Amino acid sequence: MPENAAPLDLTATATDLTVQLVDIESVSRGEQAIADAVQSALEPLAHLTVSRHGNTVVARTDLGRGERVVIAGHLDTVPLNDNLPARRDGDLIHGLGTCDMKGGDAVILRLAATVPEPVRDVTYVLYEAEEIDSEFNGLNLLSQSHPELLAGDFAILMEPSNAAVEAGCQGTLRVDVRTTGERSHSARSWRGVNAIHGAAEVLARLNAYEARRPVIDGLEYHEGLNAVFIRGGVAGNVIPDECVVEVNFRFAPDRSEDEAAAYVREFFDGFDVRVTDSAPGALPGLDRPAAKAFVEAVGGEVAPKFGWTDVARFTALGIPAVNYGPGDPMLAHKQEEFVPVEHIERCERQLRTWLTS
Amino acid sequence: MPENAAPLDLTATATDLTVQLVDIESVSRGEQAIADAVQSALEPLAHLTVSRHGNTVVARTDLGRGERVVIAGHLDTVPLNDNLPARRDGDLIHGLGTCDMKGGDAVILRLAATVPEPVRDVTYVLYEAEEIDSEFNGLNLLSQSHPELLAGDFAILMEPSNAAVEAGCQGTLRVDVRTTGERSHSARSWRGVNAIHGAAEVLARLNAYEARRPVIDGLEYHEGLNAVFIRGGVAGNVIPDECVVEVNFRFAPDRSEDEAAAYVREFFDGFDVRVTDSAPGALPGLDRPAAKAFVEAVGGEVAPKFGWTDVARFTALGIPAVNYGPGDPMLAHKQEEFVPVEHIERCERQLRTWLTS
Repeated sequence: MPENAAPLDLTATATDLTVQLVDIESVSRGEQAIADAVQSALEPLAHLTVSRHGNTVVARTDLGRGERVVIAGHLDTVPLNDNLPARRDGDLIHGLGTCDMKGGDAVILRLAATVPEPVRDVTYVLYEAEEIDSEFNGLNLLSQSHPELLAGDFAILMEPSNAAVEAGCQGTLRVDVRTTGERSHSARSWRGVNAIHGAAEVLARLNAYEARRPVIDGLEYHEGLNAVFIRGGVAGNVIPDECVVEVNFRFAPDRSEDEAAAYVREFFDGFDVRVTDSAPGALPGLDRPAAKAFVEAVGGEVAPKFGWTDVARFTALGIPAVNYGPGDPMLAHKQEEFVPVEHIERCERQLRTWLTS
Repeated sequence: MPENAAPLDLTATATDLTVQLVDIESVSRGEQAIADAVQSALEPLAHLTVSRHGNTVVARTDLGRGERVVIAGHLDTVPLNDNLPARRDGDLIHGLGTCDMKGGDAVILRLAATVPEPVRDVTYVLYEAEEIDSEFNGLNLLSQSHPELLAGDFAILMEPSNAAVEAGCQGTLRVDVRTTGERSHSARSWRGVNAIHGAAEVLARLNAYEARRPVIDGLEYHEGLNAVFIRGGVAGNVIPDECVVEVNFRFAPDRSEDEAAAYVREFFDGFDVRVTDSAPGALPGLDRPAAKAFVEAVGGEVAPKFGWTDVARFTALGIPAVNYGPGDPMLAHKQEEFVPVEHIERCERQLRTWLTS
């Protein structure tokens, strides 16, 4: 057992456990204390096999069930913003990480501690560095170093989704659309070619864009194509010879990354388009038995996930996955983030039902 | 006489004097050595009254002539760019400041030293800090502290103009054209309003702009309206709520600054337009007797000046002024700037003729 780990009390309610977790500061790249605490709390539980990978902790039941599910949550938060320690105010818990996503982590720990004989084998994953570059992402690292630990029939990522199921996720692609020109002094502008003026057509096409809204497994996704940055200019008296429009394409999970890139290239046909970043979407996968049973257990309501989340990492491993966790995703990364106690309790209750009946 | 001044030899040719001046480094705000040298060289000349103002040197004849002309040049250069010392290569002198504008300064010093009894009284002005913010500009400071020293019937600014007369100058106005929107996560872009997309119309209008080319005193000016910078964007996953297009309007001298601003506001009607910087143009003023005589003396060829120069400061004082100096203005501020010896010799010869006959 690691030294100096803040003790976690897994006999407390998930709500109290949320407060305990929030009060262990764990900004990305600073997750050692919280990972130590999680590992120390889980290791004494005889029905679990616990392993540690960096600051990622994995705990598995091994009951030989016909099905295995993965339930995952990240331990890190975005940087402090004068919003610690946790503060309970009636039915809400306020503070850094309450919504994104220590409420979900608390539910995971409660289930791990109190459901010794689930009807489905469970792999609990509490991982590091979700909020930063994917090279540090614990789920990503684990999928490379120990993919067998993530194997399963279905995965639940406890990202905030208002305690409802948000299935799959949209992909995201970033491109630089570049126009070029020729510099000249702005007092003799007719001798140059203005690259910023040349970007007018790029923006005009974006204005004319009509979003596709495909229905997949009964869920309506909603694509989006947007300039997120624009930059150009050399000096106040120089006709600029380059302008770059950075465009973000959010695409439904029925397109691959390559298809998304091809779409954007064709959309900006005639312009210099360079892909700078890309992440695939995730299909909802609601036709799988484990997924169907889960959706039934939580009441049958499913919405599409528009934002990109780590569910796509499970999809890449061939495992259908959904987002399902306490908290409003619109509050993630906001100073005033909070999580409703009712969300925590509902998630715990519904997951317990699904794992025990 | 100041200490440590590098000595200037005013008996040398203007070409040799150009080399001497170039070899005294004088990047803006570092003109003390060159101003000391100029002051020390001029003070012994009995026919001149020399005064010093910061690093600006003024030398005047006082012969009671019916007309007084001002001949001015700045002593500073843009920053070093591995282009010192001066290098003579056949009929060209290469190096920082050769073109902009120590060739012109050398002509001024030769005339000051060798024309003791000009037919017009002359005020020679060698001033500091033309290449930087106008708050440091020696001509600007002198026009505020000692406007009487700049009084005259006509002024010649020895800015590079290929040893030909470029009359007046165009004004310059800078505005920020701002579009606003509403932030949202780019995964749910339909909840926001994209300010960069909103700038499409700003750029479309710029593309549709047709330049006015008014003829003033027989000279065809050429206006220009151009985006010189564009910026917008919050983060790679956020719909941006602001985009700023910085536009530079170069306007013919028949418009005032206010008229130029009104034109740009109307051009971008419906957008948030803020004037950030403005400098008036200068009318050619070729109808004045001193100007007419000068143009005749140099052969009658006159072109319009498109760029903004300090001639506008003379115009603001009610003094008609022209640009006339050795060197190609297109080479100003370039690493490879040079001045043709023939330009220096021609300017000296023509001015000498005008001042002595």
